[in-house]
Parts: sequence; C-alpha cells; structure tokens
Amino acid sequence: MSRLPGDPPDYFRVHVFICTNRRPDDNKRGSCAGRGSEALREHMKDAQKKLGLKDVRINSAGCLDRCGKGPVMVIYPEGIWYSFNSVADLDEILETHIVGGGRVERLMLAPNS
Amino acid sequence: MSRLPGDPPDYFRVHVFICTNRRPDDNKRGSCAGRGSEALREHMKDAQKKLGLKDVRINSAGCLDRCGKGPVMVIYPEGIWYSFNSVADLDEILETHIVGGGRVERLMLAPNS
Repeated sequence: MSRLPGDPPDYFRVHVFICTNRRPDDNKRGSCAGRGSEALREHMKDAQKKLGLKDVRINSAGCLDRCGKGPVMVIYPEGIWYSFNSVADLDEILETHIVGGGRVERLMLAPNS
Repeated sequence: MSRLPGDPPDYFRVHVFICTNRRPDDNKRGSCAGRGSEALREHMKDAQKKLGLKDVRINSAGCLDRCGKGPVMVIYPEGIWYSFNSVADLDEILETHIVGGGRVERLMLAPNS
C-alpha cells in the first residue's frame, strides 16, 4: 500500500517488530519465544540505547506468521524480514541495516519462506 | 529508511500492529489493553477474515510508545497511526484505509502527539 500526499512523516525512522510469541513447550510448531527471542530482543534494545538511536523503536510483537523461520523480525517502513539466532546476528542487523542503511543478506528471509 | 533495489516485495500488503500492552489496573498511565484493545483487535481480525483479505495481517504488539492516545495502531508499510475506541472505528479503518487505500482523518494521530 502506498503513502499519500499529506501523510505525516514517519514517527519512528526505523520500527522493528520482534516476534515474542510463546507456545506451550510441547507444541510441535515451536515458537519464537521458545527459541529465545525475548532475551535476544532485550539485547537489541540495550544495544540500541548504547548507540543512542532515539529514532528507532525495538518492539515486541505477537506471532508474525512466519514461524518456520523463527525467531524472526520485520523492519518497517522498508518491510525487510530477518531470521536471527544470536546477539551477533542482532548486532550485525543494527550496524549494517539500522545504522548503515544496508542489508544483512545472509539473514534475510526469502520472499515465500 | 528507504527500500533498496533488489529488496523483496512486501510480504503482507498491509501489516497492522495493534498495541495490546497491559499495565496494572492502578498504573496512572493506563494502557491500551486496559482500554479494551485486545477485544477490539479480535473484532478487527474477524472482520478482516469475513472480508477475505488474505494479504493483510492484524498483529498484536507491545507498547508502541504513544500511550496517551491509546488504544493505538500503526499500519505499515505506509506508517499511518490511528487512535480508536470502538468496533465502528475499526470497521471504518478497514473499509476506508485497508480496502479503499484512503485515510480516516478523524482518527489519525497528529505527528507529535
């Protein structure tokens, strides 16, 4: 969907949504929280604050419906999706994508995955 | 932040994030869940399904940091923010914005509110 003339400017320059959905431990689909996404999100928030990025919001979200690739995040307004598993992954997304405006191609989700 | 050449297409045509953050009942700031956002989100999901909008995701989110105007939502990738209080508000956002591509100006948040 497109922006229209007269729309207000983006409220956050970068708005990150990290899935922190948790399913029961015996659920066969697993869940992002079950794979550690809550603690990883806390790391990313702390790292963002240390970098002084005030125009960035690291949000929690319910199930983003791409569970097989979890933990996952989506970064708006550009709409880029990443899978991540470690603090090193998140630091690279912060430095390369959020600060640098580039992409961490090795972590990006394929369009239909 | 801008999209880059080679970025994948949007995974969801419209990705709605509704704050369902809940603070304790005696918290003076209140919260979106304390003002009914969870049930309102369920209504919007049901209405979306009835309309057959398969390229739309109505997500829950943690605190979106615009608490004074809650319940609030943000719609990406266009980055438009709304405050809402009723199923009628949500039906209007669905019909006018998500189906029609327009804006419900009476519910839009002012840029710095």
